[in-house]
Amino acid sequence: MEIKRISILGSTGSIGSNTLRVVDEFRDDLQVEALAAGRNLALLTEQAVRFHPSLLCVEHRSDVDRLHDMLKNRRSNFHKIPIVWGMDGLKQAATIPEADTVLCAVSGASALVPVLEALRLGKQLALATKEILVMAGELVMRTAALHKLEIMPIDSEHNAILQCLRGEQRSSIRRIILTASGGPFLHLPMEQLSKVTPEVALRHPTWKMGKKITIDSATLMNKGLEVIEAHWLFGIPGEEVEVLIHPQSAVHSLVEMVDGSVIAQLGIADMRNAIQYALFHPHRRRNERPSLDLCHMGKLEFLAPDGKKFPCLELAYEAMRVGGTMPAVMNAANETAVRAFLEERIRFTEIARIIRITMEKHAAKTIHFLETALEADTWARVTAAGQLNSHVF
Amino acid sequence: MEIKRISILGSTGSIGSNTLRVVDEFRDDLQVEALAAGRNLALLTEQAVRFHPSLLCVEHRSDVDRLHDMLKNRRSNFHKIPIVWGMDGLKQAATIPEADTVLCAVSGASALVPVLEALRLGKQLALATKEILVMAGELVMRTAALHKLEIMPIDSEHNAILQCLRGEQRSSIRRIILTASGGPFLHLPMEQLSKVTPEVALRHPTWKMGKKITIDSATLMNKGLEVIEAHWLFGIPGEEVEVLIHPQSAVHSLVEMVDGSVIAQLGIADMRNAIQYALFHPHRRRNERPSLDLCHMGKLEFLAPDGKKFPCLELAYEAMRVGGTMPAVMNAANETAVRAFLEERIRFTEIARIIRITMEKHAAKTIHFLETALEADTWARVTAAGQLNSHVF
Repeated sequence: MEIKRISILGSTGSIGSNTLRVVDEFRDDLQVEALAAGRNLALLTEQAVRFHPSLLCVEHRSDVDRLHDMLKNRRSNFHKIPIVWGMDGLKQAATIPEADTVLCAVSGASALVPVLEALRLGKQLALATKEILVMAGELVMRTAALHKLEIMPIDSEHNAILQCLRGEQRSSIRRIILTASGGPFLHLPMEQLSKVTPEVALRHPTWKMGKKITIDSATLMNKGLEVIEAHWLFGIPGEEVEVLIHPQSAVHSLVEMVDGSVIAQLGIADMRNAIQYALFHPHRRRNERPSLDLCHMGKLEFLAPDGKKFPCLELAYEAMRVGGTMPAVMNAANETAVRAFLEERIRFTEIARIIRITMEKHAAKTIHFLETALEADTWARVTAAGQLNSHVF
Repeated sequence: MEIKRISILGSTGSIGSNTLRVVDEFRDDLQVEALAAGRNLALLTEQAVRFHPSLLCVEHRSDVDRLHDMLKNRRSNFHKIPIVWGMDGLKQAATIPEADTVLCAVSGASALVPVLEALRLGKQLALATKEILVMAGELVMRTAALHKLEIMPIDSEHNAILQCLRGEQRSSIRRIILTASGGPFLHLPMEQLSKVTPEVALRHPTWKMGKKITIDSATLMNKGLEVIEAHWLFGIPGEEVEVLIHPQSAVHSLVEMVDGSVIAQLGIADMRNAIQYALFHPHRRRNERPSLDLCHMGKLEFLAPDGKKFPCLELAYEAMRVGGTMPAVMNAANETAVRAFLEERIRFTEIARIIRITMEKHAAKTIHFLETALEADTWARVTAAGQLNSHVF
C-alpha cells in the first residue's frame, strides 16, 4: 500500500487527537501534511513537533505569532513551518498539494467550503463533520461522484454501515438502523428536562466527545443529523433510515437487507477504530486494541426513541422531508441554540423550540449552488439568535 | 438468473420441508428435480404431487411399492416417477443429471458418500448436515476446491458467518464467534442433568428442529460439531472459533476482524432465511417474512458456555485438536449415544461419558481416503454400542 498523506482539519479536537494516535500506530502508512486547529495552541505545538506537518492553520490571526513563538522555543526547525489562519487558511490546509486525503473533524458547518474545494481537487475525504452533509448533502455527494470519490464516514454509526455494506449492493438494502446511546437523559422524567444544566448534559454515558456533539447527543439532534447524513452517504430515502436506542453502544449500527437478514457492526467505544477503518477502507489493518467482550457487557438493550421527550429527532426527519435548504436551516438554528444553552442563556428544552420556530419561518429553496446553502445558514443563525433575544428565559 | 434445479436429500425433515416452502415462494427461480426421504411416505407423496420431481428416493426397499401405490391413488401421472431406495438410491438422487444443486439435510453422516459423488460431478452443495464435515471435512473441502465449488452452509450460524464475510478477506478474520441458545438446560442445576428425560430435552427454547439435533443442542454437542464445521468451511484454525451462549438466538453468529471490528448477522428464527440465502448466494432476494424486532426482544444476553456442565463442547475441541479420524469417531459415538438416550437406554449425562470413553479407546489416523473415515465411523459405533451394553444405567 502507498503511504497516505493526510491533512487534518480540527486536529486538536477529540477526533483529531484520536486520528493522530492512529497515525502514531501506523507510521509506515500514514503521514501528516497539514494540521488545522482552533485555539488550543499548546496542543497544536505538541502535534507539530511530533508529526512534522508542512502546514499549520489556526482559527484567529492573532494566534499566528503566538504559535510561531511557541514553536521557536522548541529545538530543530519547527518554527519554519508556514502558519495560515481563518477560512482562507482552512482552505489552504484542505487543498495542500502534498496531501491526498483530507480528514475533516471541524465542529459545525464552517468546513463546508474547504471540503468542497478538496473534493474538486480529487482528494479522498474522511468525514467526521456531519453538519457538512446536513447543510449541503446533495452538492457534496454530487461533487464527490463527479470525481469518483467515495466519502469515508468517521461517525461510528456510518462507519458501521459502511462496513455492513461491504460486498452488498445498494438495491439490497431494506432499511438502515442507526443506534443511539440515548444520551444522559434517557431515563430522566420529561418534566425535569427543562432544569438540566450544561454540566450535566455534557456527561455522555458511553463516548467522550466535544461539547457541541455531546449536547446534540443529549437532545437526540445528533441522531437526527446522522439520519440525514446516512440518507446522503448511502443514497437511500430518509424514511428507510431508522433510529434505535441502544444504551450500551456496542452495536454501532445495523442494516436490514431485502431478504430479512440483518447485518450489524459492533465494537468497543474507541473512535480510533472508525478512524482507522475510514483511512484504510477497504483494507482491514491489524491493531492491538482490546476486543469487544460481549460476556462482560452482559446484555444489550434496544428501545424505540421517545419522540415526545426528544423532539429534535422528528425535526430532523421533517427537515429532510422538506429538503432543499431546510436541513441547513435546522442545523444552523441548532448550532446557535446549543451555543446559547452552553452559555446558560437558554434552557435545555428551548433548543428544540428555537429550531422549530426558525424552521417554521423558513421558506425552503432548492440548493443549486453553494451560495444558497450558505445564505440559508446565515439567515437561520440570525433568525435563531433573534429568538434568543426576543424571549425571556 | 438461471433457474436452479435442486435435488433435496432429506426432504421430509425440518430443513427439507422449509426448503420446499422457499421453492414455493420462488417458483420462477427454483425447480425440484429429486426428493429423497426416510420413512414419511405420506408427506413425501404430498411433496411429489406438489413439486413434480423427476426422481424419488426412500430409505427402505419395502417402502418403494407402498409409495408407488400412494402416488397411484392421485390423479395425473405421478405414479410414473421412478422410485429408488437405500444408499444407492441416495447416490442416484444426489447425482441426478437434471439437478445442478444438491441440498443435503439428511440427519447424521449417512449422506457423506452421495455428497462426495455430487461434488465430483461439479454440483453446487447447500449443506445442512454438519456431520459430513465433522466426519471428513478435509476430504469434502478438498473435493469442493478441486471442482471450484463453494459449499453453502444452511446452519443458521454458518450461514450467518458466510454473510458476515461478504466482501472480506479470509486473512482479515481474527476469530469466529458462534452463538448458541444454550439449549433447554442452560439454567438447570448441574446435579439435575442426570435425571432429564428425552421429552424434556426435546423442548428447544428457540428453534424447532429434528430430534437428533435438538438433543445435540441440549448437550451443546451441536455447537461442538458446528465449531468443527466452521473450521473446515472457513479454513481457519479451530482455536479461532469460539462459542458464546446467547439465549435469544437473535444474533446468529459474529466475526471479529483483525482491526477489532465485529460483524454480526441477525435475524428471526426462521430456517427459510438461511435456506434462501444458501440457494441464492451471493444474491439477496426480496421476501415478505417478518423483520427482526429488536425493540420487542428488549434485551440480548451473552454468556460464556459452562464447560463443566456441558462437557461435549470441550470433547469436540479435543477431537479437532487431535484431528484425522478423531472427529469422525466422536461424531459416531455421539450419534449412537443420542439414539440410546432417545430410547431411554441411557441417561442424559451418559452421552458425554460414552463419547469420551470411545475417543479414549481410539488411535486417530490421517484420512487420505474416504474408507478410513468410514472405518473409523463404524468402529466408533460398535465401540460406543459396546459401552451401552457394558454399563448398568
